[in-house]
Amino acid sequence: MDFRSDNISGAAPEILAALAAANGGTASAYGDDDWSRELDGAFSVLFDTECRVFPVATGTAANALALGCLSPGHGAVFAHQDSHIVVDECNAPEFFTGGAKLVALPGAAGKIDAAALEAALGQGWLGVQHHPQPAAVSITQATESGTVYSPDEVAAIAHLCRANGMHLHMDGARFANAVAGLNVSPAALTWKAGVDVLSFGATKNGAIAAEAVVFFKPALADSFLFRRKRGGHLFSKMRFLSAQLLAMLQDGLWLRLARQANARAQALADGIRAIDGLSVAWPVQANEVFAQIPPTVAGRLRARGFRFHPWNPEGSLHRFVCAFDRSEDEIAAFLRAAAEEAAAG
Amino acid sequence: MDFRSDNISGAAPEILAALAAANGGTASAYGDDDWSRELDGAFSVLFDTECRVFPVATGTAANALALGCLSPGHGAVFAHQDSHIVVDECNAPEFFTGGAKLVALPGAAGKIDAAALEAALGQGWLGVQHHPQPAAVSITQATESGTVYSPDEVAAIAHLCRANGMHLHMDGARFANAVAGLNVSPAALTWKAGVDVLSFGATKNGAIAAEAVVFFKPALADSFLFRRKRGGHLFSKMRFLSAQLLAMLQDGLWLRLARQANARAQALADGIRAIDGLSVAWPVQANEVFAQIPPTVAGRLRARGFRFHPWNPEGSLHRFVCAFDRSEDEIAAFLRAAAEEAAAG
Amino acid sequence: MDFRSDNISGAAPEILAALAAANGGTASAYGDDDWSRELDGAFSVLFDTECRVFPVATGTAANALALGCLSPGHGAVFAHQDSHIVVDECNAPEFFTGGAKLVALPGAAGKIDAAALEAALGQGWLGVQHHPQPAAVSITQATESGTVYSPDEVAAIAHLCRANGMHLHMDGARFANAVAGLNVSPAALTWKAGVDVLSFGATKNGAIAAEAVVFFKPALADSFLFRRKRGGHLFSKMRFLSAQLLAMLQDGLWLRLARQANARAQALADGIRAIDGLSVAWPVQANEVFAQIPPTVAGRLRARGFRFHPWNPEGSLHRFVCAFDRSEDEIAAFLRAAAEEAAAG
Amino acid sequence: MDFRSDNISGAAPEILAALAAANGGTASAYGDDDWSRELDGAFSVLFDTECRVFPVATGTAANALALGCLSPGHGAVFAHQDSHIVVDECNAPEFFTGGAKLVALPGAAGKIDAAALEAALGQGWLGVQHHPQPAAVSITQATESGTVYSPDEVAAIAHLCRANGMHLHMDGARFANAVAGLNVSPAALTWKAGVDVLSFGATKNGAIAAEAVVFFKPALADSFLFRRKRGGHLFSKMRFLSAQLLAMLQDGLWLRLARQANARAQALADGIRAIDGLSVAWPVQANEVFAQIPPTVAGRLRARGFRFHPWNPEGSLHRFVCAFDRSEDEIAAFLRAAAEEAAAG
Repeated sequence: MDFRSDNISGAAPEILAALAAANGGTASAYGDDDWSRELDGAFSVLFDTECRVFPVATGTAANALALGCLSPGHGAVFAHQDSHIVVDECNAPEFFTGGAKLVALPGAAGKIDAAALEAALGQGWLGVQHHPQPAAVSITQATESGTVYSPDEVAAIAHLCRANGMHLHMDGARFANAVAGLNVSPAALTWKAGVDVLSFGATKNGAIAAEAVVFFKPALADSFLFRRKRGGHLFSKMRFLSAQLLAMLQDGLWLRLARQANARAQALADGIRAIDGLSVAWPVQANEVFAQIPPTVAGRLRARGFRFHPWNPEGSLHRFVCAFDRSEDEIAAFLRAAAEEAAAG
Repeated sequence: MDFRSDNISGAAPEILAALAAANGGTASAYGDDDWSRELDGAFSVLFDTECRVFPVATGTAANALALGCLSPGHGAVFAHQDSHIVVDECNAPEFFTGGAKLVALPGAAGKIDAAALEAALGQGWLGVQHHPQPAAVSITQATESGTVYSPDEVAAIAHLCRANGMHLHMDGARFANAVAGLNVSPAALTWKAGVDVLSFGATKNGAIAAEAVVFFKPALADSFLFRRKRGGHLFSKMRFLSAQLLAMLQDGLWLRLARQANARAQALADGIRAIDGLSVAWPVQANEVFAQIPPTVAGRLRARGFRFHPWNPEGSLHRFVCAFDRSEDEIAAFLRAAAEEAAAG
Repeated sequence: MDFRSDNISGAAPEILAALAAANGGTASAYGDDDWSRELDGAFSVLFDTECRVFPVATGTAANALALGCLSPGHGAVFAHQDSHIVVDECNAPEFFTGGAKLVALPGAAGKIDAAALEAALGQGWLGVQHHPQPAAVSITQATESGTVYSPDEVAAIAHLCRANGMHLHMDGARFANAVAGLNVSPAALTWKAGVDVLSFGATKNGAIAAEAVVFFKPALADSFLFRRKRGGHLFSKMRFLSAQLLAMLQDGLWLRLARQANARAQALADGIRAIDGLSVAWPVQANEVFAQIPPTVAGRLRARGFRFHPWNPEGSLHRFVCAFDRSEDEIAAFLRAAAEEAAAG
Repeated sequence: MDFRSDNISGAAPEILAALAAANGGTASAYGDDDWSRELDGAFSVLFDTECRVFPVATGTAANALALGCLSPGHGAVFAHQDSHIVVDECNAPEFFTGGAKLVALPGAAGKIDAAALEAALGQGWLGVQHHPQPAAVSITQATESGTVYSPDEVAAIAHLCRANGMHLHMDGARFANAVAGLNVSPAALTWKAGVDVLSFGATKNGAIAAEAVVFFKPALADSFLFRRKRGGHLFSKMRFLSAQLLAMLQDGLWLRLARQANARAQALADGIRAIDGLSVAWPVQANEVFAQIPPTVAGRLRARGFRFHPWNPEGSLHRFVCAFDRSEDEIAAFLRAAAEEAAAG
């Protein structure tokens, strides 16, 4: 039973069906196909505003290409110190921006502390030739800690961006889980709150490999086509990327899958909280649960076949991610085992 | 009826079946799955030598990442002036090498002229601080003109590489078609002839999106993992890339598809040559035919629904690519129409 | 007696005097000093238009930083195949543009053939995601062959730039020699003919190390300060760079030195042409002479202590550069020796 | 009276004399001159070990080119959060490394806290494809806070580098002041303590513009020539750079100037400490004094013509740098004024 990540799961059946359906006949390559041409429209409906949308295959590509449109090589991009772009992308943002500096900011529960951001922006870098030029802030929604920014929290950061001539990027590898968790509209959580570019994730949410870079300010995307090709991210048989994204939007599949994953996480968190000696570290607002479990208990659970990531060096905090296809039975089985092992001490 | 490229076709049924088969259960992400772990072994068998193999999703990524392992930013990479890396990758090789210079070389029928390469290497750049340092040669197999390098021609270029401390890369987006066309072993056409790194293409040959970067000198690959991640080319659900590649190698599917495509091209070329007023420009050695067709004839063929790429500005040379799934009926239908229109003058 | 290059000479006495004069007292660092603040004005007078001017210390820095303002990483920069930026800057233009492609164009006597440029621009790259985007043309004035573009020739290339949305850069490492050779105004040879950015060279013309990047369209310079610092080219004691440039402009020193160098080259060329068996390859329009000299004669001249660069692999073409401080006696001495050796056969 | 920085001063007379002396006759360009050829030897004597030495003109160039030899684009470079490379070089290190990540570490008085470094290295990045690969640590000697690392402190950091397969760079823009302050040998403070590459500063110490990149492990320098040229940092008239460096080493000028500057700083600090209401923030170990001065007092001192940098946003900490040519009279004059103004309250 595997709670290590959402990407240990395969694809939802609807996604495989979409690939099969897209496989008939010939189609123009490199995005000039029927599926790809629908994307702008479909996402514009979803977000209730005109968008320019570009499919890519990985979240790192989505983030790094988006940031490449926002920051020059002499720019600075501000992000949470635990964010994927700072820690887990092997310098892809630096690569695609031509060498921008990622400024790592602190903040509780995975969210950038607005005061820390304000302090960082108050150093007097803007316009001074010695310093990297503030170009963008990137926030993660849902965060690496399984929490979410409320629309107001997003807007507060966006306000700082505007005041400093910067753009706001949202890494939405788990955007669906955030929308499901907050029960707000995609628009409210993005452009209405001041987000300029969104990495809209589908892979973790049940696709094979598909992400959409969604620009709410079309002019920011002017160089995207060339940057994507230069990055090796232009798919010749693009229809297979676009078909995955369209399938996700079809009949709200993306939200249905995310709600399911979130519900499992809530059940898991509730169950863990009910077990003596175990606890949950941060609010569970998406599909991740960070649980405090004594090392011996965690060890025995692993020995029984339950898989989950250790999260801190001390080893008592563990991450449980509920992928879209975790079942109620799996949750129940884990909780039974956890209760037994916790009782055994 | 569509002869514009091989990537206007979808995927072979075996590929879709492989995706479906790979979709069961959870698997470790980022390449630590059963499918991905088989790749080194499977390619080592295919090439009859120990290889290190890395799946990526696009040919541009394969080429650019491979060249990034071969050339520093102050290096020079020599390639044919019509090659994909020079003309069609929007500076991806420059990007992934950190700014290496691509030196464009002439040569008939898409193949680097060995004398031109020798002259370029004779300029005295090596070790001189003013000049980019010769680092690699990249050849395309089969070429953009639908021709192939014989093993001896590859070896002659490899000899120049060795003599100048350079490495040899082969862009094998249509490697299968070249092997099928030459009827030699994969080994004979690569490492035995002096190739260090191969971009082994599967996408054009019937995959959805899968290429393998194959290192015949394992040490050259030491930084590949980091370069791939930094480029945003590490797939979280890697099993779906690897499963495509394994399906290609399974029971020789890759060669069967390529032979079929090549056979169609031969039939197409034979038929064109037999039509008065039409001719074929270069030897047809893979799955592409470059045909001289009078503009009026070409125009009427297009009006009848046949699709093919104009290849030169003057407009009398046209490219026909036979994808893996072009049928004998399609070839016959085109030839009938061409004969009719050519006769009409 | 040394004709190898202009940079084998030291500095003009006026330059050393200017350094000494600038050495009194303290001054704000990094360009906020009295000397540096005068530059914009002084160059605006010289060029009879408003300029933004940035001092750097090397010609490669001037060129590469200028091109970095003109081309993105997915851009293409067109230049002569023998130009310094293509051949002699170890990929600095690629580095500072973030990986732009330098497209090498042919052309007689070191000058870009306008038809070749037009053909290159006619390939249909503009706006097409597969190809590098035409961004700039760079011409060298005077060229590597010691010839010059007339204002009309510059304008013809500028016209192609405008028609294709590109900018025009002029590498003026020997701009002074070109102005002196053509006897036109600096304005006529630059912005009035369509040049957007000029690398104004002083080092070869008698400075220690000083070049000015001159922007005729101020908006193009908006990121220059940051690019210069990021490139490590911002001098803390900037006054010493600026003082060299101001000394060059003072009382027309730059033109006086260049006229002197050009006059020596003319005398040298005239003398060589008068010697049986020797000849001059290209028009001598600046301070360089390319002479055909039989290998045995060249060898004996070298043995007698005359120094000059072999220019082609065959060894019969040789470059003679007259630095600002070559004397009439040196020219006469060389010509006497050359006549003797040529007569000796 | 100007205490803003060391680079507000001009050049020592010995430096100007060296330039004048180097100006006679012609010399091979680009480093193949008599002065440049002496550098390796002269520095090898100074450091009592074989060095490879490369002159450049700015400290940022020295640091960034050195780090470019130590870290690939997918690498991580660890440095103090207030260091010049992190804060004041507008992403030059990112640029020259091809996009490495600079990891900013805390530490009192400008020195990296060894425990913080150890913790950062304990995150498990090494060999894991998701993370930037630990490549180098860079320490500043003397630090931005005017303090110095003792040889033992350097060795402790070098030990962590060795244990993690990393190299150690020292930014020695004020290396002379550190050596003078510690009264140890240059060898003891560098390679004997584990430093691999040193940016040896001369500009702040009385040169016009000259720094030396000193490699104690010659193999690390193998690509330096090409990187320097690619960065636009190869001077054609190199003799003028090299002559400055040789003049600095001649008869110990570099140490004499640094000792003088340090003595002034000590006198300044002693005087400030003796004034009621004023204090000194960090140990004064080089040529900088950071003084706590009430805002009103500081304001009145500025109004009287004394210049010094505010150091913190609150405005009570101020930086005084004693350049090589600050005089005893200037120190005395400032201290008299400060005493008067402090007494006035």
